[in-house]
Amino acid sequence: MTLQSFGVIGLAVMGENIALNVERNGFPIAVYNRSREKTDAFMAQRAPGRNVKAAFTLEEFVAALERPRRILVMVQAGKPVDAVIAQLKPLLDEGDIIIDGGNSWFEDTERRTQELEPAGFRFIGMGVSGGEEGALNGPSLMPGGTQSSYEYLSPIFNKIAAQVDDGPCVTYIGPGGSGHYVKMVHNGIEYGDMQLIAEAYDLLKNAAGLDHNQLHEVFAEWNTTDELNSFLIEITSNIFPYIDPDTNLPLVDLIVDAAGQKGTGRWTVQTALELGVSIPTITAAVNARIISSIKDERIAASKILTGPSGKYDGQTKDFINKVRDALYCSKICSYAQGMALLSTASKTYNWNLTLGELARIWKGGCIIRAGFLNKIKKAFDENAALANLLLAPEFKQTILDRQTAWREVIITAAKLGIPVPAFSASLDYFDSYRRDRLPQNLTQAQRDYFGAHTYLRLDKPGTFHTEWVPIAEAEKK
Amino acid sequence: MTLQSFGVIGLAVMGENIALNVERNGFPIAVYNRSREKTDAFMAQRAPGRNVKAAFTLEEFVAALERPRRILVMVQAGKPVDAVIAQLKPLLDEGDIIIDGGNSWFEDTERRTQELEPAGFRFIGMGVSGGEEGALNGPSLMPGGTQSSYEYLSPIFNKIAAQVDDGPCVTYIGPGGSGHYVKMVHNGIEYGDMQLIAEAYDLLKNAAGLDHNQLHEVFAEWNTTDELNSFLIEITSNIFPYIDPDTNLPLVDLIVDAAGQKGTGRWTVQTALELGVSIPTITAAVNARIISSIKDERIAASKILTGPSGKYDGQTKDFINKVRDALYCSKICSYAQGMALLSTASKTYNWNLTLGELARIWKGGCIIRAGFLNKIKKAFDENAALANLLLAPEFKQTILDRQTAWREVIITAAKLGIPVPAFSASLDYFDSYRRDRLPQNLTQAQRDYFGAHTYLRLDKPGTFHTEWVPIAEAEKK
Repeated sequence: MTLQSFGVIGLAVMGENIALNVERNGFPIAVYNRSREKTDAFMAQRAPGRNVKAAFTLEEFVAALERPRRILVMVQAGKPVDAVIAQLKPLLDEGDIIIDGGNSWFEDTERRTQELEPAGFRFIGMGVSGGEEGALNGPSLMPGGTQSSYEYLSPIFNKIAAQVDDGPCVTYIGPGGSGHYVKMVHNGIEYGDMQLIAEAYDLLKNAAGLDHNQLHEVFAEWNTTDELNSFLIEITSNIFPYIDPDTNLPLVDLIVDAAGQKGTGRWTVQTALELGVSIPTITAAVNARIISSIKDERIAASKILTGPSGKYDGQTKDFINKVRDALYCSKICSYAQGMALLSTASKTYNWNLTLGELARIWKGGCIIRAGFLNKIKKAFDENAALANLLLAPEFKQTILDRQTAWREVIITAAKLGIPVPAFSASLDYFDSYRRDRLPQNLTQAQRDYFGAHTYLRLDKPGTFHTEWVPIAEAEKK
Repeated sequence: MTLQSFGVIGLAVMGENIALNVERNGFPIAVYNRSREKTDAFMAQRAPGRNVKAAFTLEEFVAALERPRRILVMVQAGKPVDAVIAQLKPLLDEGDIIIDGGNSWFEDTERRTQELEPAGFRFIGMGVSGGEEGALNGPSLMPGGTQSSYEYLSPIFNKIAAQVDDGPCVTYIGPGGSGHYVKMVHNGIEYGDMQLIAEAYDLLKNAAGLDHNQLHEVFAEWNTTDELNSFLIEITSNIFPYIDPDTNLPLVDLIVDAAGQKGTGRWTVQTALELGVSIPTITAAVNARIISSIKDERIAASKILTGPSGKYDGQTKDFINKVRDALYCSKICSYAQGMALLSTASKTYNWNLTLGELARIWKGGCIIRAGFLNKIKKAFDENAALANLLLAPEFKQTILDRQTAWREVIITAAKLGIPVPAFSASLDYFDSYRRDRLPQNLTQAQRDYFGAHTYLRLDKPGTFHTEWVPIAEAEKK
């Protein structure tokens, strides 16, 4: 029996598609799914004519693979991953590689690495981005683990990944949970991008009064620009003209405005808090989904809490350009935050991440793919120690040139009562980051006043406490 | 030997002060500290003339207490609490009560309850707010655990707590970790209050050009108003005129503008994400401390990232009033978020919290004590099922009356380049909450487009997926 080069466990759509992608690139595959029905369906519908071996037990599955085995696990993050690993472990040989391609919490990946590597197995925690289509035709891959394991896998990864002008969208990320961490931040940035686009849409529709055809035109035009050309802007431009066949109305207008948040978006905010990194744009994006989800409460509140009305009173064309500038400035802030988080995580966990290389592998395959990432790659290539993307010459100049428009958009939104939480959080981030003095001297004085927390002084070293008012009067009585 | 009524373990300043408060109210105390020096110092400096028994071993300590014992543990949250409990456990008798008065993570309190109660001991997780001064003269107490344990402690708690017009600032919060949870949210709200005051200060100083004497006057005047009268406004008004004796300059101007965040503030944001509750004002407050802490980076950035300059160009007096309105509207939003979080936590964990009663016990003793809390108590007393504080008649009217001023302040800040992250997050919260339609229909369309995540429709029930564009072209090739 000829052995297969690569195995995939889990035949949900992502698993199926990535399996077919591997096979199409010349690597015979074995597949296994917990329930036989999915395997049967896959073999009947998608595998004909392809070099696929279906296994109906894990024993069959491992027996079908050449050694050291390369096994990609594409099951739901959390306990299912542990369950698969526990079942696989007794069947594997030394040096076999398990790749977890789900959106696992990076600390779980660290734990699994500690369990598997000392036992002689190899483990790769790999972020996979690109949705169904990317999985099939070329995703962005973010594999973390030991470098030697990566080298053994890279001939396959290099072929299945999306291909861009400077190579395949995959690189060795770093040890342990770094691959899943980078994917998590990618998703946090994706939340940010999507929310910024949603706010631009809200303003264009409700402040400027654009209809779905005009919205299509604006986003299609933005997608031709150097700054905003991206997958998310492209699909946005495609969404607006889609007419629902049942009602003859734009489908987007019929979709319930309530979005969920969980997993990677929330984790990005939580880990940023743990590491003490400021990511307010991404945080606002996660929060905007939360508040969108209480739709019934909002409908009730809309009848009670009135606000300003009216439209933008200037030229529509000017406003469209200002919204574009606000979107782009906010986007720069959002990426600055994400990269700063990655930089701090890299230092904290000794991952030695190469930020420019991360920007490069996001240029294709993944949801946030965009021409813009070239500029980020360039910024970190020119200065690997860059403290913040806002300080890179090109981004700095872009924001300085466009900040007036950005401020005007936020002013318009505040006047008209249109919420722009991610636009505002971005501007407040910019205005905080560029301030040598912030008002937290008062915060520190308050904390010292009521809790004797002490403070530092600008004019001399040391830690100080002031008896702002006599304390313990009762004690003296 | 006469036995003492109440024991305190841990003689840092909070432990010392609460011990003296208990004794002053007629309950003889025993005290113990891990290092003998602190106990000696306490006995020499603060205990003379009082009914205090010093114990130098835990055996002595438990032997000095009447049974069932009432033991308050005032040590650092985390492992030190577990260590003390482990040492105490073999020395205790059935029915003895351990009270953890630190800022413990509520899940730790739940775990400790599960460890201690089945073993026959009783455990109370109690939030204590008020800083040093409150601990000594009357804190706000938030005890959670079994109600019978609370009843046994309440004669002491009722006396040592701050006293306000409608009783002592203590009540039975609920079971398990609810007391520590409520204290955590109290602290989150405190972060919000402090940040909102910091932004008001920044605007008054840098947009309106007020000096420290004028700042003192403004805050002193605000402290006389029905809306803003509060401990934090009062101490703020006291901070500005404090002149540093070494330099003859206002001390507040010499304090480093970098504030830390950890523990309860961060946890409030993290738990809100877990529970899916929107608390953007509190989140912005935590984030503002994070960004304040990278002072060196900010100084460097201030030389590169320029922005608008100038002052507010209207009447100073008008601006002061507008800032007051913005502060008050934002504060209402912040409390609305905190109470909504408590409401969801209560439902999630079956705590049966009484929100009006929580507002009442915060009226005195604690850091957020304020006349304003009477209004919150009233709102929940009138309607215990109130979905959001913004919908309570008084708060609704207040915001509707003042929203124009609030919006103008945010517009001024955006124009002048002054960051107001918590003011903006509050306005965006208000403008999102009161919108029946938000732009997350686009978000859902995007998610369905790239990830087949499906969506709901406004016009009919069911879950839908659209093939927005042909997928899997490569597959057909």
